[in-house]
Amino acid sequence: MAVKDYIRNNKDKFLNELLDLLRIPSVSADPKFKDDVFAAAEFVRESLDKAGADTVEVCQTAGYPIVYGEKTIDPSLPTVLVYGHYDVQPADPYELWDSPPFEPVIKDAPNHEEGAIFARGSADDKGQFYMHVKAFEAMMAEGNLPCNVKFMIEGEEEVGSDNLEEFVINNKEKLSADVILISDTHMISMENPSITVGLRGMAYMEVEVIGANRDLHSGTYGGAVANPINILCQMISSMLDENNHVTIPGFYDKVQELTDEQRKRLNEAPFDLEEYKSKLNIDAVHGEKGYSTIERVGIRPTLDVNGIWGGYMGEGAKTVLPSKANAKISMRLVPDQDWHEISELFENYFKSIAPDSVKVSVKTHHGGSPAVVSDSSMGYKAAEAAMEETFGKRPIPTREGGSIPIVALFQKELGTDPILFGFGLDTDALHSPNEHYGVKNYFIGIETIAVFFEKFRALSQG
Amino acid sequence: MAVKDYIRNNKDKFLNELLDLLRIPSVSADPKFKDDVFAAAEFVRESLDKAGADTVEVCQTAGYPIVYGEKTIDPSLPTVLVYGHYDVQPADPYELWDSPPFEPVIKDAPNHEEGAIFARGSADDKGQFYMHVKAFEAMMAEGNLPCNVKFMIEGEEEVGSDNLEEFVINNKEKLSADVILISDTHMISMENPSITVGLRGMAYMEVEVIGANRDLHSGTYGGAVANPINILCQMISSMLDENNHVTIPGFYDKVQELTDEQRKRLNEAPFDLEEYKSKLNIDAVHGEKGYSTIERVGIRPTLDVNGIWGGYMGEGAKTVLPSKANAKISMRLVPDQDWHEISELFENYFKSIAPDSVKVSVKTHHGGSPAVVSDSSMGYKAAEAAMEETFGKRPIPTREGGSIPIVALFQKELGTDPILFGFGLDTDALHSPNEHYGVKNYFIGIETIAVFFEKFRALSQG
Repeated sequence: MAVKDYIRNNKDKFLNELLDLLRIPSVSADPKFKDDVFAAAEFVRESLDKAGADTVEVCQTAGYPIVYGEKTIDPSLPTVLVYGHYDVQPADPYELWDSPPFEPVIKDAPNHEEGAIFARGSADDKGQFYMHVKAFEAMMAEGNLPCNVKFMIEGEEEVGSDNLEEFVINNKEKLSADVILISDTHMISMENPSITVGLRGMAYMEVEVIGANRDLHSGTYGGAVANPINILCQMISSMLDENNHVTIPGFYDKVQELTDEQRKRLNEAPFDLEEYKSKLNIDAVHGEKGYSTIERVGIRPTLDVNGIWGGYMGEGAKTVLPSKANAKISMRLVPDQDWHEISELFENYFKSIAPDSVKVSVKTHHGGSPAVVSDSSMGYKAAEAAMEETFGKRPIPTREGGSIPIVALFQKELGTDPILFGFGLDTDALHSPNEHYGVKNYFIGIETIAVFFEKFRALSQG
Repeated sequence: MAVKDYIRNNKDKFLNELLDLLRIPSVSADPKFKDDVFAAAEFVRESLDKAGADTVEVCQTAGYPIVYGEKTIDPSLPTVLVYGHYDVQPADPYELWDSPPFEPVIKDAPNHEEGAIFARGSADDKGQFYMHVKAFEAMMAEGNLPCNVKFMIEGEEEVGSDNLEEFVINNKEKLSADVILISDTHMISMENPSITVGLRGMAYMEVEVIGANRDLHSGTYGGAVANPINILCQMISSMLDENNHVTIPGFYDKVQELTDEQRKRLNEAPFDLEEYKSKLNIDAVHGEKGYSTIERVGIRPTLDVNGIWGGYMGEGAKTVLPSKANAKISMRLVPDQDWHEISELFENYFKSIAPDSVKVSVKTHHGGSPAVVSDSSMGYKAAEAAMEETFGKRPIPTREGGSIPIVALFQKELGTDPILFGFGLDTDALHSPNEHYGVKNYFIGIETIAVFFEKFRALSQG
């Protein structure tokens, strides 16, 4: 296939262009990277333009822009909508990176026989959405684009996609498509390709516990005045019981319980607990009683403290009884939990368990709905067939613990089930120091996407 | 009395010299202030020299030096040993200071009719030990020093006085005295002068809880892998029960229970709970069930988290499942708890309650023994009489929640009960932003010390 040849003949070009994109520190959570986030948007616009899109626009929003591009070869042909995001997670703690997060390098890496690209955003999501841009370029270059294509690449995914919903609602016509492709998830392994059919939602909160109006001497006041850190620890601790069951009243009310048959099938996915533990260097896993590790991340909600701080964090010892303590706490949600409702339940409960010796405040950062996508749609079947061709093995449908809130949004507003066409590995250190993305994954992804376009056209022309 | 006149005629000089000392950021806990701590020692040496000491030495130790000075007028007269410290607590959080911590300013302040000196160390302990230097200067200037005097001013009190014990043991002869004066405590109020006769000890620990070998994506792993912050919160929470009783086995075994009569007398000290709460802007106090606020800080041990940190503490939201979490935890101790023993009990218990899904490490920062000093010694009676003369009211013996580990050390090694001759107020924000020391307290302190020398000589000569 000429398209495959083009891809193979342009490996260095495809790789270097991705490295250039990875050099832009487009951290959407931190205002000090504002200009870089905009620069990343411009980079995407230019890439789509060069690849051969008819129209490309940088659509401004109340936050960071959404880059839209399209190529219509024949209105009677099916249309593929590609979603991705050019923003990345914060890179700190920087000191734990073996190489600077925004100076990409290709090095050997476990599970990556051809090495991996180390950089923040390499897997989440620059390296993955960019595969679609390159596949598009290859198909165009060979005059062989089987379907019409639309791109919607946003810059606020890592901070909750606050402005995407309005954009989607206001541009339903423009975004109309027969299938949506999202490459922002991972596979079980190169030997066991998989397609994600379930995602958790999220409610992300920030809390503050305030005691006295100033830091106090822990000798003069210790034992008589509430210590906000002790209290915060007690409050957090009381939100999970001895079985790691969340204690917030009503938290589980809308959780879909799977049938024994469904749970059985879920647990049939290849999983080696010993390997899992040794890769993380832990002696034991830790989670909700009565569920397997696959179930704990796939079909059960969580409550995790993502950050905590208070009092003296410097060198040595300071005998301070601090005035306040803070924490960032997020809950992963499963169908049919509603993140607005869960955020409210959390806030009410957190306030209800605060002793009268402290004042507390609770803020909702953002959230997203959980989603389950069909594994029998035409899009899924085309993706399955494409992967089977490039990997030589039929992909397994899996449920992933992460959240891609826009999946539920697309289902609701565009009436289309997105295909979670991810090519990363769960060992790629997403959101962690030394995030990386396999060189082989990048190129097999580009090829698989090109094959998908052929399969999807063939299927839709039945 | 000529000495009082000298003090009153040199107010500006005495004040300006203290401000110069306060400008030196002698933070012993933070290595980056190393040179400043040594500079403060030199400042003290020079002050004692100018005041009229016969011999002054800067005695090097494994850490920061101890400044020793003495003036012997007649070996047959009683000798007063003055102890103090020239090091200070860290000043952070800097942003909460109304004026820079090491740029002292004199401003109006509640409870201080003549205003107060705002600076880190103004009350703890530079402003207080320096009163002794100035009283000494005044008595020398007027040729009226009633007793021999020795000074021992150290630079590691805020980090546990690690090298003082060795110095004291090796210099018992040099340090021999009939009474020891320490001004590093506070009074109930200007209207209710008091002398501290009880101090709590301390054991200061630092803990680390480690989960996976790297930060993880809270979606991919959340619910299946131990979250070190959640675990740390649970472990801290489990160290205090619902009555705020410390749960560490053996923690209370050696605690001296007071008789009902002793507790009754302790609670007779003037104390206004409503005023106490309103000054701290809290709706309720918080402490061990069954004890009054005075008892909670005076005769009961505590367990307080002085600092906690882990995960993402920056702007916005990061969905990380962190690799580790840390906390600084200190316990205030009462007679006859032994800080070495308590540190060991803490470490054993903390390790025993860690789930097998995490690894924990425990480090002992430093500690100090609790102490009770006699309120019937000749030194106490002289201090009582001196305060009664300058304040016009007989001081009340009280127990303070803070720790001055060297009190027990002096009792043991020098066989002398120190007099805790403090002139600060508990509202002076020790160890907090905007620490201050009353101008009036400074000068009445200098006068009272001078009077003490007369009274002590008179009493010792029967």
